[in-house]
Amino acid sequence: MEFSSKLLEKAVNEMAQLPGIGKRTALRLVLHLLKQPSEQTQFLSQALTTMREEIKFCSSCHNISDVEVCEICNNPNRNHKIICVVEDVRDVMAIENTNQFKGIYHVLGGKISPIDGVGPSQLNIDSLVEKVKSGEIEELIFALSSTMEGDTTNFYIFKRIKDYSIKTSTIARGIAVGDELEYADEVTLGRSILNRVPFENTLKNI
Amino acid sequence: MEFSSKLLEKAVNEMAQLPGIGKRTALRLVLHLLKQPSEQTQFLSQALTTMREEIKFCSSCHNISDVEVCEICNNPNRNHKIICVVEDVRDVMAIENTNQFKGIYHVLGGKISPIDGVGPSQLNIDSLVEKVKSGEIEELIFALSSTMEGDTTNFYIFKRIKDYSIKTSTIARGIAVGDELEYADEVTLGRSILNRVPFENTLKNI
Ligand SMILES: [Zn+2]
Ligand SMILES: [Zn+2]
Repeated sequence: MEFSSKLLEKAVNEMAQLPGIGKRTALRLVLHLLKQPSEQTQFLSQALTTMREEIKFCSSCHNISDVEVCEICNNPNRNHKIICVVEDVRDVMAIENTNQFKGIYHVLGGKISPIDGVGPSQLNIDSLVEKVKSGEIEELIFALSSTMEGDTTNFYIFKRIKDYSIKTSTIARGIAVGDELEYADEVTLGRSILNRVPFENTLKNI
Repeated sequence: MEFSSKLLEKAVNEMAQLPGIGKRTALRLVLHLLKQPSEQTQFLSQALTTMREEIKFCSSCHNISDVEVCEICNNPNRNHKIICVVEDVRDVMAIENTNQFKGIYHVLGGKISPIDGVGPSQLNIDSLVEKVKSGEIEELIFALSSTMEGDTTNFYIFKRIKDYSIKTSTIARGIAVGDELEYADEVTLGRSILNRVPFENTLKNI
């Protein structure tokens, strides 16, 4: 792709670094910004920069938060003895949206994936194990996506906590195997939390 | 969509202003930036802001350019008597990529579209008519997309210049009717320029 302007080329190249955005899409987006008032570009750039610089993660559940401890962890009306283990903030948003879950969360920040070079130490697993060791947790609900990596991660955590007297469950798979959690409809996802099954029951399939 | 952070929400909302980017895609892109080094967000924001503030348009052909008169208009080896009339910079890039055209361009900046509130006065049409009036142009090649709006724009320009002795042509439609110019393959697009037909020949279809 030959550009008539270095400024245009640079903007397109930076935009095309985003996942799923090819050069042609990037060019279309950048040309759109050129046709809009310059405030739109300013607001976008400012919002991205401010977010990247100032965003915080809850010191307890690792969810994205503007304060030290997030609203969910800070809510006395939620059941702090039931922890739903999820991959990232999108899963928290999806489950919150169902209004079916009144426990709290633990955001791992990803799944164990040797191919992508992601091992247990890069995920928020130690802090989860510490919570279990504290003896104040009654149940862990595994709500990772049902992929090989999700199953591996569930099983790794299960092995590390199985000597503590704690209930473990996985959300019921009304959701098609292989589908991403965040794209499930609210009813299906809500039901799969209500119908969670003991984690041991799922092991016979491994 | 309920966000756990105002900073996150604002970044997602700004990103979702871009055409074709829904809230879910915006969230995915923003979370990606959070996982990358903060330099990536800085570079993206800086590139967009600088482009929006400093970009120029060629004073002759209205193509995006970093200098007053673009490289194509400034090139003595190009035939300045043949002007290819296009919608935007993407079409210039697509045609340049074929290496089949050695004339110059005129970028209209859009198509006449009453539904979208775009009339002739919002496009770079007057300056094109002035060029024709100067008597130094031998041929106009209409290379707009073959949509209703493209045909309307071609015909409007044709009416304004038909009293001047100038050849008009449209690129040959090896490209499927209704397809966007910028997505055509190079061979088809290159051939359609070589095989351009007198504009009058296309009027019987209107
Ligand atoms: Zn929290
Ligand atoms: Zn020019």
